[in-house]
Amino acid sequence: MYVYADNGATTKMSEMAINAMLPYMDNIYGNPSSLHSAGQRAAEALYTARETVAKCLGCLPNEITFTSGGSEADNQAIISAAAKGSRKGKKHIISTSIEHHAVLHTLDKLKKQGYDVTLLPTDENGLVTAEQVAEAIRDDTCLVTVMYANNEIGTVEPIREIGRVCRDKGVVFHTDAVQAAGHIRVNVKDDNIDMLSISAHKFHGPKGVGALYCKKGIPLVNIIEGGAQERGKRAGTENIPAIMGMAAALEEACENIETNTAKVMPLRDKLIAELSKIPHSRVNGDIQKRLPGNVNMCFEGIEGESLLLLLDEKGICASSGSACTSGSLDPSHVLLAIGLPHEVAHGSLRLSISEYNTEEEIDHIIKSVPEVVEYLRSMSPVWKDLESGKRQYYFK
Amino acid sequence: MYVYADNGATTKMSEMAINAMLPYMDNIYGNPSSLHSAGQRAAEALYTARETVAKCLGCLPNEITFTSGGSEADNQAIISAAAKGSRKGKKHIISTSIEHHAVLHTLDKLKKQGYDVTLLPTDENGLVTAEQVAEAIRDDTCLVTVMYANNEIGTVEPIREIGRVCRDKGVVFHTDAVQAAGHIRVNVKDDNIDMLSISAHKFHGPKGVGALYCKKGIPLVNIIEGGAQERGKRAGTENIPAIMGMAAALEEACENIETNTAKVMPLRDKLIAELSKIPHSRVNGDIQKRLPGNVNMCFEGIEGESLLLLLDEKGICASSGSACTSGSLDPSHVLLAIGLPHEVAHGSLRLSISEYNTEEEIDHIIKSVPEVVEYLRSMSPVWKDLESGKRQYYFK
Repeated sequence: MYVYADNGATTKMSEMAINAMLPYMDNIYGNPSSLHSAGQRAAEALYTARETVAKCLGCLPNEITFTSGGSEADNQAIISAAAKGSRKGKKHIISTSIEHHAVLHTLDKLKKQGYDVTLLPTDENGLVTAEQVAEAIRDDTCLVTVMYANNEIGTVEPIREIGRVCRDKGVVFHTDAVQAAGHIRVNVKDDNIDMLSISAHKFHGPKGVGALYCKKGIPLVNIIEGGAQERGKRAGTENIPAIMGMAAALEEACENIETNTAKVMPLRDKLIAELSKIPHSRVNGDIQKRLPGNVNMCFEGIEGESLLLLLDEKGICASSGSACTSGSLDPSHVLLAIGLPHEVAHGSLRLSISEYNTEEEIDHIIKSVPEVVEYLRSMSPVWKDLESGKRQYYFK
Repeated sequence: MYVYADNGATTKMSEMAINAMLPYMDNIYGNPSSLHSAGQRAAEALYTARETVAKCLGCLPNEITFTSGGSEADNQAIISAAAKGSRKGKKHIISTSIEHHAVLHTLDKLKKQGYDVTLLPTDENGLVTAEQVAEAIRDDTCLVTVMYANNEIGTVEPIREIGRVCRDKGVVFHTDAVQAAGHIRVNVKDDNIDMLSISAHKFHGPKGVGALYCKKGIPLVNIIEGGAQERGKRAGTENIPAIMGMAAALEEACENIETNTAKVMPLRDKLIAELSKIPHSRVNGDIQKRLPGNVNMCFEGIEGESLLLLLDEKGICASSGSACTSGSLDPSHVLLAIGLPHEVAHGSLRLSISEYNTEEEIDHIIKSVPEVVEYLRSMSPVWKDLESGKRQYYFK
C-alpha cells in the first residue's frame, strides 16, 4: 500500500489544477505583455486568475502579486515592510521563534542591515498570543510577521487577534499563510491582515508559483528587478500556466474547505488517538488549534530519519518536520522552540494528510508506526538506557 | 492565417518539453528535499535535469542553480558578483547601454548602494567590442556584464573575446544569454564565461523557470532566503515539472541547433530582403552577427503600436521590441542607444521567428507588412510632412 502523508512538504496536483494549466502549456502560450491577440489571451487569463485568487483571500485583484512561490512572497513582504519602516526611522520587527526559514533567514539578513528583531517565544504547543504581540510593539516597530499555521506542528496562531492589535497600533502585519491557505478559512479583511503569502503546491496546485497579498498603500520593494510585469513590482514573464493552476486549485480548495475538513480532521484525530498509545510518545502542537491534516509526534529513544526510512519501506511517505531543512542534521528549530530537548526532538514524525487519503491508508499508518517504533527501540542503545533506568524518560 | 512571429517574447512549448513535464505534474509529485521514495524520485529527476542543462552549457552540474526565470538569474548573478567585489573594495561594474532591464535595473539598484556603473555605448548596429571592455576595466572593476544577444535587435556580441579580456584581467564576466541559449551555440568554457543566465520559455520550454550558471569559486548571494534548496543558494521548493521541461527543451534545442538555424536563417534573410524594399525603412541590428530568427526594422512616418494591431488583424503576432516594456510609452532604449531619434524609434517592428514557422507564413508576413505600412502612412500627418518636404527623411 502506498500512502502519501507528506502534504506539508508538497501535495499531489488536483485534476482541476492540471486541467487548468494544460491549455496554457499548449495553445495559449502568448506573453501577457504582448499587444497582439496571442498575448492578450494570456493577459485575460492572468486577469481572471488574479480575480479568483483575490476573491478566495478576500482582497482586491490589484492587491495580489504573483511570485515564484511562498518563499519569494515571504521575502518580498518582509523586505517591503522593513523598507517602509526604515523611511520613517522604524527598524524594529516582531516575529516568532517558530517561523519558516523563509521568514527567519530574511529577518537575519535585515538584522545585518541594522534592524532589531524580536522573536516571541511560544508556549509548549507553539502558540503565541495577541497580548505578547501587543507588549512587544514599540514606537519603532514597523512590522509584525507571525505565521498563520506552523508547517511542522500544525498549530494555528490567533491571527485575527494579532491582526487587530497591529491595526490598532498602526503596525504592518504580515502572515505566512503557506500551510493555512486552502486548508482553513483565510480572509485578509476579517483577519486584519496587511500582507499574506501563499504557495500553490501546498493546496494541490502547481510548484513554482505563489502569491503575495499586499494591502493597497503599502509599497512593494522589488526583489527581482527588470520588466514592468506585476505593476512593476515583480519582473519576469508571468508564469501563466502555473498561475492558472494555482487559481483553480485555490478556488477548488476554498469551495471544499468544509467538506475536506469534515473528512480529514477525523482521520487526523484517529491517527493522534491511536499513535498516542505508543508509550513514551508525545503529540506536538496544539490539539485544538491545529491544521486539519497535521499530526506531529515525538517518540523517545529513536531517530526520526530511521523511522522515515522504515515507514517508506512500508509505503508510507512522511517527514520528520520541514522538508526544506531535511538535509540538515540539526533538530527542528520549532521543536526546540516549544521546549523539547535535542535528543527528543530528533525522534519526531510529521504525518500531514489530505482529503486524498483514505481510511484504509490511515489504518495502514496506525498499524505500521508502532511496529517500526518498537523495532527501532529494540535496537536503540538510548532506549536500553531508558528502560534500565540509566536515563530518565522525558515523556511518561 | 495565424503566424506567431514573436518568439523573442515567448515561444510555444515543444511537445518534448510538455511531455517531460506531465509525469511530474501528475504522479511524481514529491518534494525533492523529502527523504522518502516519492521525494527521492523527484530528487533523481532534479539531478538528471541539472546534468542535462550543465552538459548543454558546457559546465559542471553543481555550477547550475535553477531559478524562476531569466530575470531572477540576471539579478542574482549581478548582485553576487557585486557583493564579491565589494568585499575587496571593488565597486565598479561595466555593462552596455542595450542590456535587458533585468540587468539595467539591477545596476540602478547597485548604483544607489554606491557602485559605479559604466555603460558602454554600442555602434549603430548595437555591437560593443572587447577593446572597449578592455579600456573600461579599472583596478576596482568587479564585474563585466554584457548580453550574449540583444532581445530587440538580435545583435550577437563578441562574447568569447570579451570573456577573454575579463579572464586576462581577473574580472568576473556575466552574460545574459536569455535570447541566445538554444538558438546559437553557447559554451561557457569556450566562451570564457563566469556567470550566465538562461530562461526556458525562450527556447520552447516552460515559463517560470530559468537557470544561472555560476563558475565554481564565485559565491552566490541569495535573493530568496529560506530553505536549503539549491545548495542553500535559492530557497523555495524546486519546481520539478518546469525544471524537467526546461532540461528537455534545452537538450532538444541544442541537438537541433544546426538544423534549426539552417531552416530559420534563410527565412529571416528573406524577410529582411523583402521588407527592406519598403521605402524609408531600416534594418536595425548587425546583419551578420545576428540571432538566426530576429528581424527588427523601422519604418518612417508610422507608429509601431498601430502597425502591430493591424498586423494582428491579419493574424500576425509581432512586437515593437521587448514585450517586457510594452506597457511603456517610451521608445525602446535599445533603438535610442544605437542612435535612432525618438520619432523613428517609435515606428519599430520586431519579427522573431522560429523553426516552427513555415515558408507560407513568412510569405504572408512579406505580403502584409508593406500593405499595413502603406495604409498607416496614408493616414499619417508625419508621413505627409515627409512627402511634402516639410520634414526631412531620416532613412533614404
